[in-house]
Amino acid sequence: MRIMGIDPGIAIVGFAILDQQGNVLKPIEYGSIQTESKLSTATRLKQIYDALTHLFKEFQPDVMAIEKLFFNRNVTTAFTVGQARGVIMLAAEEAGVEISEYTPLQVKMAVVGYGQAEKRQVQEMVKALLALPRIPKPDDVADALAIAICEAHSSQAIRGLRGGER
Amino acid sequence: MRIMGIDPGIAIVGFAILDQQGNVLKPIEYGSIQTESKLSTATRLKQIYDALTHLFKEFQPDVMAIEKLFFNRNVTTAFTVGQARGVIMLAAEEAGVEISEYTPLQVKMAVVGYGQAEKRQVQEMVKALLALPRIPKPDDVADALAIAICEAHSSQAIRGLRGGER
Repeated sequence: MRIMGIDPGIAIVGFAILDQQGNVLKPIEYGSIQTESKLSTATRLKQIYDALTHLFKEFQPDVMAIEKLFFNRNVTTAFTVGQARGVIMLAAEEAGVEISEYTPLQVKMAVVGYGQAEKRQVQEMVKALLALPRIPKPDDVADALAIAICEAHSSQAIRGLRGGER
Repeated sequence: MRIMGIDPGIAIVGFAILDQQGNVLKPIEYGSIQTESKLSTATRLKQIYDALTHLFKEFQPDVMAIEKLFFNRNVTTAFTVGQARGVIMLAAEEAGVEISEYTPLQVKMAVVGYGQAEKRQVQEMVKALLALPRIPKPDDVADALAIAICEAHSSQAIRGLRGGER
């Protein structure tokens, strides 16, 4: 099972690709797509779309995990992030990649086991769970890894339940 | 000069194509792209993107006019409309269509000549300026026509200024 986690944005998109083999999570690739603020919004959106399309083609994930809704209070930020999320969802749909959506609470519960966890705690757990040498930077990359871990744990929980039904 | 006006949304995208020949504005085509709420967001975004790509190919507009920012107070709505606007901007960029952005105030000033104009006044002026038999429905179509008229008047004003500089 190959999982892609995405943290959307117009300036920085964090991405993370993990392989899940039983209880083992192996990081395959993680990093960020960055666009320059001097470029037009349309050009930046196309760069994000093209980069995502390339990642889907190269890594062929089974599922893309992304945050469900935008919980920031700032309307302008919500609108801007929404635009980036739109082209990311489109790239996934065109690549035939299944999309899973999680709330920030679900991500914290899955990674730390505690819904009120601080950003730093989530980052430390990401580092520990994936045996990374350090916390990845920028934060968007750590966030993408966290949501990919959330997908791995959630799908495992569902398989556990199904096994129990037999 | 062929202008496309767009009013973005996830359920309804209003579109309008006008030809500007000197002072004359001729409506070529207008209508809406509608997506069903039972479908996934990714599927709806792809339907919007595909429909826009098709419209760009068929009508080959020189410029697409769209609202600059989202002024509604609702964060969730801003996020949702942002996603639709993202794939619309992407389709325009890929089609090589220039993008013009206007605020709601600029649209009202251009169409009615009064920034505090009511929606109904804008719609009546759209009908009058384009000699339409009735106000187009849904409102998203009238809004798309209004922003296309705004682009026509604005680009005309710019050409007027340039003429004056000679």
